[in-house]
Amino acid sequence: MDGGVVTILTDFGVDDPYVGIMKGVMLNINPTIRLIDLTHHIPPQNVRAGAFIMAAAYSFFPEKTVHLAIVDPGVGTERRLIAARSKKYFFVGPDNGIFSLVWNHEKPEEIVSLDNPEYWLENISSTFHGRDIMAPVAAYISKGVELSKFGESYTPVGKLPWSPVIIEHGKIRGEIIYIDRFGNLVTSIRVQDIPEDNFPDKVVIRIGKWIIRGISRTYGDASPGSLIALIGSYGYLEIAVTGGSAQEKTGLSWDEPVEVSLL
Amino acid sequence: MDGGVVTILTDFGVDDPYVGIMKGVMLNINPTIRLIDLTHHIPPQNVRAGAFIMAAAYSFFPEKTVHLAIVDPGVGTERRLIAARSKKYFFVGPDNGIFSLVWNHEKPEEIVSLDNPEYWLENISSTFHGRDIMAPVAAYISKGVELSKFGESYTPVGKLPWSPVIIEHGKIRGEIIYIDRFGNLVTSIRVQDIPEDNFPDKVVIRIGKWIIRGISRTYGDASPGSLIALIGSYGYLEIAVTGGSAQEKTGLSWDEPVEVSLL
Amino acid sequence: MDGGVVTILTDFGVDDPYVGIMKGVMLNINPTIRLIDLTHHIPPQNVRAGAFIMAAAYSFFPEKTVHLAIVDPGVGTERRLIAARSKKYFFVGPDNGIFSLVWNHEKPEEIVSLDNPEYWLENISSTFHGRDIMAPVAAYISKGVELSKFGESYTPVGKLPWSPVIIEHGKIRGEIIYIDRFGNLVTSIRVQDIPEDNFPDKVVIRIGKWIIRGISRTYGDASPGSLIALIGSYGYLEIAVTGGSAQEKTGLSWDEPVEVSLL
Repeated sequence: MDGGVVTILTDFGVDDPYVGIMKGVMLNINPTIRLIDLTHHIPPQNVRAGAFIMAAAYSFFPEKTVHLAIVDPGVGTERRLIAARSKKYFFVGPDNGIFSLVWNHEKPEEIVSLDNPEYWLENISSTFHGRDIMAPVAAYISKGVELSKFGESYTPVGKLPWSPVIIEHGKIRGEIIYIDRFGNLVTSIRVQDIPEDNFPDKVVIRIGKWIIRGISRTYGDASPGSLIALIGSYGYLEIAVTGGSAQEKTGLSWDEPVEVSLL
Repeated sequence: MDGGVVTILTDFGVDDPYVGIMKGVMLNINPTIRLIDLTHHIPPQNVRAGAFIMAAAYSFFPEKTVHLAIVDPGVGTERRLIAARSKKYFFVGPDNGIFSLVWNHEKPEEIVSLDNPEYWLENISSTFHGRDIMAPVAAYISKGVELSKFGESYTPVGKLPWSPVIIEHGKIRGEIIYIDRFGNLVTSIRVQDIPEDNFPDKVVIRIGKWIIRGISRTYGDASPGSLIALIGSYGYLEIAVTGGSAQEKTGLSWDEPVEVSLL
Repeated sequence: MDGGVVTILTDFGVDDPYVGIMKGVMLNINPTIRLIDLTHHIPPQNVRAGAFIMAAAYSFFPEKTVHLAIVDPGVGTERRLIAARSKKYFFVGPDNGIFSLVWNHEKPEEIVSLDNPEYWLENISSTFHGRDIMAPVAAYISKGVELSKFGESYTPVGKLPWSPVIIEHGKIRGEIIYIDRFGNLVTSIRVQDIPEDNFPDKVVIRIGKWIIRGISRTYGDASPGSLIALIGSYGYLEIAVTGGSAQEKTGLSWDEPVEVSLL
């Protein structure tokens, strides 16, 4: 009766009816499903941004939520589609690393590749596997169908081109992994990576040609226009500008290295 | 108890609370209704785009879904509002042709004009009949109220200014009927219009000054920047550019004729 | 079982997953809740626009709906968060005046400040109180938890910098309080403020250097490009341009005074 929750993350935008169509497909299979949009504004084909947003959001949902993530530059190629189960959640999407950040924290206990057309729509297009394969599978999972029904056990090959955070010789090295709509530069360094003894004042952050001393508590902690570092709501070290855009002020973008020196 | 599904398609955008207000109105009438946004980003007053999106999406929803479509340049004039019932679905909107494409496939069995103010909000504005008349009627339909309660039987007069696809002398003639956010040019020619013997290679497509030989299987089938033809996820022949925008590359727009020669 | 309705109004946009995360938080607390987006496109930190939209929309929702409004430029400062109960509705948001327009019509019977961390998420960030405090409280209210559980009785201090409409000496004076996406200039003067004897013809409206005689019935009542006044769907006097943008045509913006002379 409760129907279960399915979250949906895509790079489809909301001008076209693609997302609505996938919801119709899922309601046809499970009429009591609860459908929650995470975002449909992932930059087109930016699997990394999708992976970051998924990792930031998945854990706030109820147990057994199905997380459906469709950022799929490989549609039409031989890439596989997968469904996975961790202790608390289910995941459905392409095998391109979109869940790899999540799985650092939420280890999958079972992964299958979506091979069994019994759980797909009858007519499969070559361009819209979200509608034809992934949405139906997500809806069947929300109804309690076991993962083994959808296909063979599978070891994902998709990986994000992300450098791990390196901590050595009193330095923490990461990179910019996400830029939000305010121009805040989110780094791969998490609050847990910074020793408690150094937090918040005994650090110097270097990014591009900029040097930031100490970590601020909130966006409003410095005078307008100042470049600051803070722990954003995702739990990652962010570079921000009080009342402005750090992306604009610095000209920095995705992948830029960042270094935190511990004093 | 299940409450039924109402889909909502408008040109309202999502900056203003118009869509949310219509949802409040419907929840007031039927608290167990399931409300699904198809899109609210139809170009303002573009009834044709609304008709195309509705036709592309309606059939993916469960039986008895109510499809509410509000693209209504005639608000404040004498145009009628209508509710219709086909074998599987219900439709509510202005009588301006917005359902005419759907009805090529899903013949309406009953159409009424919305004359009976008993099923409207108490105070009717002259500018927001979506809130005052159409949303309430859609909600009452989802509760099982019969169409005859809303008004007299009615023959729609609204028609889209669309040329039918013409197939003769080894040529199929259509036009561009929709442009999606990637700049793909969707034509009125459907995959069924192309003889199986000619699909996919034995065709030449002419549009503007461009000539395209054969139909590709996916967007990635040609080198970046190439103009290609393919069958899009809507089931229509589309003109696309691999990794780019066909609208930008060709400068073509809505209404442009397209011709498919069968070899 | 019915779960209740929570509406959500923010300035978060929909690129980032903030809204989806808040929905996950609420579903965790009340799995049968119905979540309705009012809009997430309030101009950043524009509490006035949020207040106007909330006032325009709240009354269309079912009794006991919880209205959650998060436009919160004061996050990270000492501003309070509040929950309120009127005869028909509940309200949750920052104490910055965002509900002050609503409360002109829907007097609150109880207001508390959100002091009791038992009803918050376990880890409170300094930047995202929507997720950590306000969303959980809204979800608990939808489950029937009494306001007194969340904190002490409280008298709000947040006020909008809005001049009341002044009616004297045959003139009504207001100002522009909202601009919609079509460039319509919504004034603070409501239809009730204009004497029936003068409506619609016996008025002259002055705004900036423009003079408009009489109030039109619909947007289409004048020739394209004309500046007109009409009562918009919100019930307020609006300045509009037939087939165009009044904001563009006049160059006027938020706060501009408007005067209606009664003839």
